[in-house]
Amino acid sequence: MNSIVYRQNPALVGFRSLAGGALLPVGDYPGGCPEGRVAGRPTSVAAVYEEQKRESGRLPTGGDMLQWGSYLPYLEWPSLGEGGTPLIELESTCGVNKLWIKAEWMNPTGSHKDRMSPLAVARALEVGADGIICSSSGNAGISMACYAAKAGLASRVIVTASLPKPVRQALATYGTDVVVAKNSLDRWRVMEEAVAKERWFPLTNYLLPPVGSCAWGVEGYKTVAFELAAECRNGLDAVIVPTARGDIIWGIAAGFAMLAKQGQWNGPLPKLIAIEPFPRISKVLQNEAVITNEFPGSTRQASTAGTTATDQSLRAVVETGGTALAISDEMAAVAQRDLAKKFGIYLELCAAAPYAAISHLLAQGSLAPTDRVVLIGTSAGYRDPIAMDATTSRVPA
Amino acid sequence: MNSIVYRQNPALVGFRSLAGGALLPVGDYPGGCPEGRVAGRPTSVAAVYEEQKRESGRLPTGGDMLQWGSYLPYLEWPSLGEGGTPLIELESTCGVNKLWIKAEWMNPTGSHKDRMSPLAVARALEVGADGIICSSSGNAGISMACYAAKAGLASRVIVTASLPKPVRQALATYGTDVVVAKNSLDRWRVMEEAVAKERWFPLTNYLLPPVGSCAWGVEGYKTVAFELAAECRNGLDAVIVPTARGDIIWGIAAGFAMLAKQGQWNGPLPKLIAIEPFPRISKVLQNEAVITNEFPGSTRQASTAGTTATDQSLRAVVETGGTALAISDEMAAVAQRDLAKKFGIYLELCAAAPYAAISHLLAQGSLAPTDRVVLIGTSAGYRDPIAMDATTSRVPA
Repeated sequence: MNSIVYRQNPALVGFRSLAGGALLPVGDYPGGCPEGRVAGRPTSVAAVYEEQKRESGRLPTGGDMLQWGSYLPYLEWPSLGEGGTPLIELESTCGVNKLWIKAEWMNPTGSHKDRMSPLAVARALEVGADGIICSSSGNAGISMACYAAKAGLASRVIVTASLPKPVRQALATYGTDVVVAKNSLDRWRVMEEAVAKERWFPLTNYLLPPVGSCAWGVEGYKTVAFELAAECRNGLDAVIVPTARGDIIWGIAAGFAMLAKQGQWNGPLPKLIAIEPFPRISKVLQNEAVITNEFPGSTRQASTAGTTATDQSLRAVVETGGTALAISDEMAAVAQRDLAKKFGIYLELCAAAPYAAISHLLAQGSLAPTDRVVLIGTSAGYRDPIAMDATTSRVPA
Repeated sequence: MNSIVYRQNPALVGFRSLAGGALLPVGDYPGGCPEGRVAGRPTSVAAVYEEQKRESGRLPTGGDMLQWGSYLPYLEWPSLGEGGTPLIELESTCGVNKLWIKAEWMNPTGSHKDRMSPLAVARALEVGADGIICSSSGNAGISMACYAAKAGLASRVIVTASLPKPVRQALATYGTDVVVAKNSLDRWRVMEEAVAKERWFPLTNYLLPPVGSCAWGVEGYKTVAFELAAECRNGLDAVIVPTARGDIIWGIAAGFAMLAKQGQWNGPLPKLIAIEPFPRISKVLQNEAVITNEFPGSTRQASTAGTTATDQSLRAVVETGGTALAISDEMAAVAQRDLAKKFGIYLELCAAAPYAAISHLLAQGSLAPTDRVVLIGTSAGYRDPIAMDATTSRVPA
């Protein structure tokens, strides 16, 4: 279909397990580090770059993600102006010193996933894949379908039968191949087959125990850290992130670590705090489970649902001195209404959960009243299953 | 509730009918110019500013709408990072020289209306209104509800019973008062009552014949012209705009005229081309109707539906040497699919219609193959009634 190949960053020298160890050659590691997989504790890999000379001056602000090409595995990609989202200060701070929300819902398809998809699509094109595939019933699928279409690459999204109609409509309009699996976990089996038997490039995890998404794509989330570092020059103490398998929270941790190493972020890394709909990482932190366990639970926080957790999200929290907290659907719903009514910010249920977490984090000492805090507003309210899963209806007069 | 008053631009000296005539004092003209209303041909008014000394150098790029405060009736307003949307170049140009699309769907609530709402909310606060009110079943209502909430101002949206559930959910979450009218035109009667009997500030028109929306808000659309002028420094020949009552097309015309007068845009103004779902302005241009007529027709292009037209959209087209063209729902649907499949751009049906128009405009000589053309991508695909008006549904396997 399309023979464009985007320029790889010549500074990329390979990948390495998040657990450390040998440099792995530039390549694809959908199962994470092979050693960890064999040992039964799979760990994602992350890109390794030659040390680059960086200006120690101010980081740029205001541009979109393309300005960060030299920090990423590709210098360019099929772009729709992703990234460069506003950082909105909230006038009422819930008891912390400063409170902002990063407007990830203002990305091209309405969620943070637009920082990951174009880099993964660039990789799929480079390896000559027949198409790109993922398991998703929401933001990731829509974003991948969008960027694959933009690049002229075939795409396939594995869904369950409960796929909301607006998502189905979006996928159909992008021309994506939609495949219905029996249930949430069966999606991974279907995906594994497509990867093994056909030449499809996997965007999201399809193995148990799971790892994060395609490492080439996850690198894109570092740009959230780059933008925050530029926007919060006077300091930033904590970032609160809706978390499922932790692509974005890990990316933010890695981005700040990269800046610190390059002398572009001074002072401690901000604590990263993972918000989940029911205890997963929280259980691991309390030594009630190991990360490879299954974590039973159900939730209407669709984009952070799922009964598994990953090593990368645990690391993001532990390595930055952060924590994890479960926020119930009821608490998230109150936060969703509060953010809309007080600040005009209407988010998907899981994206509102970090706002609900602040008072609890203060009470348990995970946040201090002096902290300057950013909430990651991962996606827009119209992506909420409650908003989508509904017929046209008469409004009570 | 809230006593913030935003700073009015001291350069604002009054308003003037688009038809010319006397300077009217700074104030509110929801019926347009009083003289024109009495004469049976109502015309919107526009803000008049003292001539300001501008640097003749380059216009700024990349910032959000707040950077244009000195060009607008307020220097500041309740902001969520609206404006500063990407201008995306389309690789395949449909036969013109250059083709871009302005990503208005990347505004805070997913449409161009976010350039109008915060300025109207600022005005409602300044006059001490009890709240702000509009007639809308989609983008305008959502945007107004968002910015009113942000500013702590009450809001009321007059809808019809066919309001799509996701819109109802958004309005409910913002805490807006939703009132159901008997039909589309009855919404105006309900609104007129609220304005006359209560102290509600009207955002949208409620009179027959109609004029444009609140002039304070419409000024915000000038910033589309400012951004395009900065982004298309080498020239721009035509802008194609989905048009109902013409707030945005008029605002773009006024913005370019303002820049030209200030020496910040050289060369001719770009032709503005209004796209409508069935003939309204087109009929007037062909002398088959006058602008105050009713124009029967129905369409699934919800955000540009309506059986009336306004003087301001006619002027925007005539004064810039542009034209108007009707694009059917079927043609718009093909454009919607093409934009999504070829470029990853999934728009509301009416927002895709300008893309369908290009070949027709070339064939009839309204566009030339040498033209550099911008399409205004007013709103996102998830706002499409077809996407919203649907239950959760099983995907055929």
